[in-house]
Amino acid sequence: MAVDFEPDPRVAELADRTRRFVREEVIPVEVAHDGVVGSEEVRRRLQAGARAAGVFAPHAAEEFGGHGLDMCGRAAVFEEAGYSLLGPIALNIAAPDEGNVHMLEQIASEEQKARYLAPLAAGDVRSCFAMTEPAPGAGSDPDALSTTATRVPGGWRIDGRKWFITGADGAAFAIVMARTAGEPGDRGGATMFLVDAGNPGMQVGRHIPTLDESLYGGHLEVTFDDCRVGDDAVLGEADQGYRYAQVRLGPARMTHCMRWLGIARRAQDIAVGHAAQRRLFGSRLGDLGMAQAMIADNEIDVAAARGLILRACWELDRGRHAGAEVSIAKTFTAEAVWRVVDRSLQLCGSLGVSGDVLLGRFLREVRPFRIYDGPSETHRWSIARRVVGRHTAGTAGAAGSAGAARPAGVR
Amino acid sequence: MAVDFEPDPRVAELADRTRRFVREEVIPVEVAHDGVVGSEEVRRRLQAGARAAGVFAPHAAEEFGGHGLDMCGRAAVFEEAGYSLLGPIALNIAAPDEGNVHMLEQIASEEQKARYLAPLAAGDVRSCFAMTEPAPGAGSDPDALSTTATRVPGGWRIDGRKWFITGADGAAFAIVMARTAGEPGDRGGATMFLVDAGNPGMQVGRHIPTLDESLYGGHLEVTFDDCRVGDDAVLGEADQGYRYAQVRLGPARMTHCMRWLGIARRAQDIAVGHAAQRRLFGSRLGDLGMAQAMIADNEIDVAAARGLILRACWELDRGRHAGAEVSIAKTFTAEAVWRVVDRSLQLCGSLGVSGDVLLGRFLREVRPFRIYDGPSETHRWSIARRVVGRHTAGTAGAAGSAGAARPAGVR
Amino acid sequence: MAVDFEPDPRVAELADRTRRFVREEVIPVEVAHDGVVGSEEVRRRLQAGARAAGVFAPHAAEEFGGHGLDMCGRAAVFEEAGYSLLGPIALNIAAPDEGNVHMLEQIASEEQKARYLAPLAAGDVRSCFAMTEPAPGAGSDPDALSTTATRVPGGWRIDGRKWFITGADGAAFAIVMARTAGEPGDRGGATMFLVDAGNPGMQVGRHIPTLDESLYGGHLEVTFDDCRVGDDAVLGEADQGYRYAQVRLGPARMTHCMRWLGIARRAQDIAVGHAAQRRLFGSRLGDLGMAQAMIADNEIDVAAARGLILRACWELDRGRHAGAEVSIAKTFTAEAVWRVVDRSLQLCGSLGVSGDVLLGRFLREVRPFRIYDGPSETHRWSIARRVVGRHTAGTAGAAGSAGAARPAGVR
Amino acid sequence: MAVDFEPDPRVAELADRTRRFVREEVIPVEVAHDGVVGSEEVRRRLQAGARAAGVFAPHAAEEFGGHGLDMCGRAAVFEEAGYSLLGPIALNIAAPDEGNVHMLEQIASEEQKARYLAPLAAGDVRSCFAMTEPAPGAGSDPDALSTTATRVPGGWRIDGRKWFITGADGAAFAIVMARTAGEPGDRGGATMFLVDAGNPGMQVGRHIPTLDESLYGGHLEVTFDDCRVGDDAVLGEADQGYRYAQVRLGPARMTHCMRWLGIARRAQDIAVGHAAQRRLFGSRLGDLGMAQAMIADNEIDVAAARGLILRACWELDRGRHAGAEVSIAKTFTAEAVWRVVDRSLQLCGSLGVSGDVLLGRFLREVRPFRIYDGPSETHRWSIARRVVGRHTAGTAGAAGSAGAARPAGVR
Repeated sequence: MAVDFEPDPRVAELADRTRRFVREEVIPVEVAHDGVVGSEEVRRRLQAGARAAGVFAPHAAEEFGGHGLDMCGRAAVFEEAGYSLLGPIALNIAAPDEGNVHMLEQIASEEQKARYLAPLAAGDVRSCFAMTEPAPGAGSDPDALSTTATRVPGGWRIDGRKWFITGADGAAFAIVMARTAGEPGDRGGATMFLVDAGNPGMQVGRHIPTLDESLYGGHLEVTFDDCRVGDDAVLGEADQGYRYAQVRLGPARMTHCMRWLGIARRAQDIAVGHAAQRRLFGSRLGDLGMAQAMIADNEIDVAAARGLILRACWELDRGRHAGAEVSIAKTFTAEAVWRVVDRSLQLCGSLGVSGDVLLGRFLREVRPFRIYDGPSETHRWSIARRVVGRHTAGTAGAAGSAGAARPAGVR
Repeated sequence: MAVDFEPDPRVAELADRTRRFVREEVIPVEVAHDGVVGSEEVRRRLQAGARAAGVFAPHAAEEFGGHGLDMCGRAAVFEEAGYSLLGPIALNIAAPDEGNVHMLEQIASEEQKARYLAPLAAGDVRSCFAMTEPAPGAGSDPDALSTTATRVPGGWRIDGRKWFITGADGAAFAIVMARTAGEPGDRGGATMFLVDAGNPGMQVGRHIPTLDESLYGGHLEVTFDDCRVGDDAVLGEADQGYRYAQVRLGPARMTHCMRWLGIARRAQDIAVGHAAQRRLFGSRLGDLGMAQAMIADNEIDVAAARGLILRACWELDRGRHAGAEVSIAKTFTAEAVWRVVDRSLQLCGSLGVSGDVLLGRFLREVRPFRIYDGPSETHRWSIARRVVGRHTAGTAGAAGSAGAARPAGVR
Repeated sequence: MAVDFEPDPRVAELADRTRRFVREEVIPVEVAHDGVVGSEEVRRRLQAGARAAGVFAPHAAEEFGGHGLDMCGRAAVFEEAGYSLLGPIALNIAAPDEGNVHMLEQIASEEQKARYLAPLAAGDVRSCFAMTEPAPGAGSDPDALSTTATRVPGGWRIDGRKWFITGADGAAFAIVMARTAGEPGDRGGATMFLVDAGNPGMQVGRHIPTLDESLYGGHLEVTFDDCRVGDDAVLGEADQGYRYAQVRLGPARMTHCMRWLGIARRAQDIAVGHAAQRRLFGSRLGDLGMAQAMIADNEIDVAAARGLILRACWELDRGRHAGAEVSIAKTFTAEAVWRVVDRSLQLCGSLGVSGDVLLGRFLREVRPFRIYDGPSETHRWSIARRVVGRHTAGTAGAAGSAGAARPAGVR
Repeated sequence: MAVDFEPDPRVAELADRTRRFVREEVIPVEVAHDGVVGSEEVRRRLQAGARAAGVFAPHAAEEFGGHGLDMCGRAAVFEEAGYSLLGPIALNIAAPDEGNVHMLEQIASEEQKARYLAPLAAGDVRSCFAMTEPAPGAGSDPDALSTTATRVPGGWRIDGRKWFITGADGAAFAIVMARTAGEPGDRGGATMFLVDAGNPGMQVGRHIPTLDESLYGGHLEVTFDDCRVGDDAVLGEADQGYRYAQVRLGPARMTHCMRWLGIARRAQDIAVGHAAQRRLFGSRLGDLGMAQAMIADNEIDVAAARGLILRACWELDRGRHAGAEVSIAKTFTAEAVWRVVDRSLQLCGSLGVSGDVLLGRFLREVRPFRIYDGPSETHRWSIARRVVGRHTAGTAGAAGSAGAARPAGVR
């Protein structure tokens, strides 16, 4: 029998250890800090704990101190880490560092790996990924990219404005996406650059106040004004930025899903725990039909999301682009997680909106995920385009071009 | 033709003035304060503005300085006030004072009106309504009331714990619901008491941190420990508390709906304003089908909620209990407003989750309304009970008793 | 107090009589015929009953033997008639005759009224309205109108193909919409013609088999091939067809809503009757929370739809175009009625899918209403266009044109 | 890497052959017969075709002429068969025969296998499964079983009424569930009996008219009145009927899901084919945002359902009870398939409700699946009970009993 849902024993064991670590060491810190890391000291303490527990950096290659998990393996472990808002930072698998580690492993030169990837994977430094721009720049529509990089003697000059750059405050370096060919509105060509913090041409501006607050380092505006970098700052090859973005975006969307699925399960556990003991109208809350319906719908949503994530990961692990599977899993999971947290909060009533449980916090944190990493609408558009395009191609004999959906990504 | 949706010209004119006042004077303050009043100075300044604009206290009787609007009139004016989170406090129609004014007008003695209602309607003092208790006390199930009032020489002694008492911090007095007959779990009898701030037996405890933050005076824990009051503290008659609660709860649910409907319209206006100018994928956002669907669904939700509110108000104005109409309007509106704000935020993308617009704030503020004033599930239970009970009565000849749903209310 | 939901006593009395007539005389026939009229004999017998009960033709002017109700009045009476699938035909207010009576009263000349309207209002003959065309002709997009009428000596020649022409089989005449200016794809001009059955140029073709089966006379294909008519066949003025279509479409959408709202109430009554007596899991079905949620949601949907219909009718009665109100009411009602019937069927379990109750029949009949009279998507598009257009106009100073949504109609 | 979604090559090849067989040989017959088999001649012709194509009886053991697929293998092949309403009958995997083959393989004695299983697997005869009873008997609540079997000399006597017995008309034998211990309302004990057609104590009564019509042999009422059978009619052991029912019900729910998932894909293909070529409002339907949203949601629903089905099958193949996984997959799939067919019909507009495509037929066929095999509400109750029970057990130390949900099944 070929179909198999059983993870590798090594992965299962790591997931199990992660589960225990999160419950025993991370959640107490999370509750004490209302779900927000807050300080470098807390981050370092949590990561030291993860190292001691042997669960640090499950995604990084073993040569960089990690466990070298493939995407299916990450699915099992990241969900356990995501059971607490602080679990991912503890394991060093929070956005955007986790995705940057993934991309640098694939694309960076050996020198770049030594200089940027090694300390990042080790948790010694943090990073950011500077792609999203304020309107009318690159957001849902990546072709609107308006930050430019132009050739200057000995290197490049970057100019433009980015926003919603997660983790930029305190990041040791930024991976910056800039246009090196074409005009905003067409695909053209883009290039990725590694820009060190402290480069005088890169200004990390204001923290954008957002509904969510738990992503460490915040969401920031970053301005590039005559920002000079050398040729060694080019990540991979020039003009290949859109292709590299795919290397990062598909997997990053899935790891986001895994982590938020953990929060969904946590919300459900809080709600079920409440429903199992709260009595009203002469009955136990968990025995009332409307509560049971919400609890069951939570189970269904979690199971369906998990299945879709695993499927997309399996495709990615086989080296496929998996654009459709990723969009399907991302869209469903972002909305399912939202529904689960919302129902869980409702099940807890007034307690649910109070700070005495973290459900209100979770609600705030998961809401933006229906927008970040490509809004649900952009993914639906992409999914439909492929299907209609495939049909058109199939009947009209024109091969596949209409089905080649463009990437959609806030980050 | 008898059916008529046109408000009285006097009401229409007051609604129109309110609309202008809110846009010109309130919204600038709201935006500057991120939707939270924050200080007594701001409250007083806003209320002075409303007095100057001739829109203060539209619900209070003219003898108490108000405009004496009935419920249908309030529907027109409160929606305009609710267009800003700070509109209701400006007009002195925010919860819980607005509902307390309504109830005191109906039930209080002349002495009580002079002492409590007059300064409250004038905005000189604030008040709170202390009914909700932490589990397993009175919440969705009012029969679980466990705070007691017992006869002592010359008056009463109140003991018990309340929570989620909105506006308790700074309130000049509390209207307290306490059991004076029966045991928790049966209806028995309850009595309402007027307790002055400063009574040594009433301790206003901690602010409960909540997802919502804009209701002035917060949500608090209030403890009654050998709290002594005289016979003149009884509001109306002893043991009639559940009946009086109905006098307050039905209308208060509707005024909540009116105010939140204003926020829904505001959210829609923000989203439509964004969609009308934002361009992506070579098109205007507002011309893309998925955006149009969200905009249209917002229109539908707002119109349907408005119709249900008006219908329930019309029934209340005719002196009917209107339990079914109120539950229907409250349930639909609470959920519709939530959907509208959620869609509006989605339409604005990253901007929507940022603090640069108030949509994230609105989302936090409206979420609890699906729980406060009776969770949607409790109202659905109440609606269904009536319908099934009526059918049973109709076929079985047993008159109406099964249809007599009990009130459901967090507050 | 101006707002008023109370119908005129005369209307209330007529509604009450209709309610009794439908329950006592129509439903037995409906149940015996599985909701399908089936024969001219049944139609005539039902209409004789309605005449005897004094409830016939509530919408027609008194001079044509009716009760002359305005739209708000119709809302009260038609909902009662719609409580049975056969109620509308009994009262002579079924589609498409009802809408044709309405339009002929507004537009026809005295001669046309005597010849067409009088026998139609009396139930002596039936009619049809031939507007919808197969793709790529006029459907959701009326500007695609491709049937043409060209001037010939002494009159006109009509050529084209129509489909989904309800009631065409057996109709004494058709009101035909044909293009008299412009090309398919632009608005141009259209004219309405009265074409008698038997005109050799008008061929009534096959019955289109459809999910719904209860609209008497079926849905047919009708072909016009060198169909000659005189100048006296022009209804109103030439080239004014789109304007006249509005006279018919808005009210016809509302009367559809009224009738289907009746079916929704009927479905709910069947389900509640079942839930009130069926026992399972040691409880009464109607006391189980998930059943209560469905029952309550049905109540909410019915109440919200009724409010929206009444509001649109009130606007229409004041002579307003009410395009937004009609689209909102139509979209919500079509979907709400569908949900109500679906939930009612689910509540009845296996019984619900059996022919032992009519819920499966109702499900089939109401499903197309989300498509007929303009699909929900077209109405949402129209609603959003107005809102975005109004905003654009408001901010940009360009008056209203973007908000002028085109009519959308299958029929 | 352990996780694997790739079916066995042998299974993949069989699925592929099934796909071609259904498209080439079955769909033409289906379209010609409006989705209803209609006659024994059609059934035999289709089955001969499947034998010739080498795709007959994929589920049956090889010794009985089948392909011996496990549940995961069936998931791949049955979905392809279900792409046409007539595919399952062609492959001899339609309900209820398919489930009966499955159960007889597990439980029947060698004699019973020779006599009943062999001809059934070969398609020579048909069968039925007589469990469901009219209210207040066994339906959603199997403990309400009221048909009794009592010991008589040399065998048993069966008395009671069954309904919704699918395929009873023309079945060569029935598998009958009857109470042999306890009273209706408690679990007690049940026994399964093999009763031959022609037994004078078993009367196959009326065909229940239902919304769905494609299950061959219809849904019937079957009455047992002093029905005598010998000891050799007992299937497995006496009093083990509830346990055996589980052997059948879990897998049968999943195979239902697989087949209906095929119809969902078919509906989507019809709709996408229409959307890819239909033009309106100057655009291609498939390029309009609201249409794209529906197409994408269909893709998401199909993918999520497939993942849940596969997961439950994998658990079943490992010999686990998989009650939670089956309930989750059944509930989600039944509702998802319904949504997909509904959206597809909507996408096709008037064409969708016409008989010119089979979408109206599909809508009628899939609707009852939200009720058959346990209504969604019963499954949600079962899912929630496990979760709450597990939590209670976990915190209270009382092992698992509260989590032992009872089976729920209409059939």
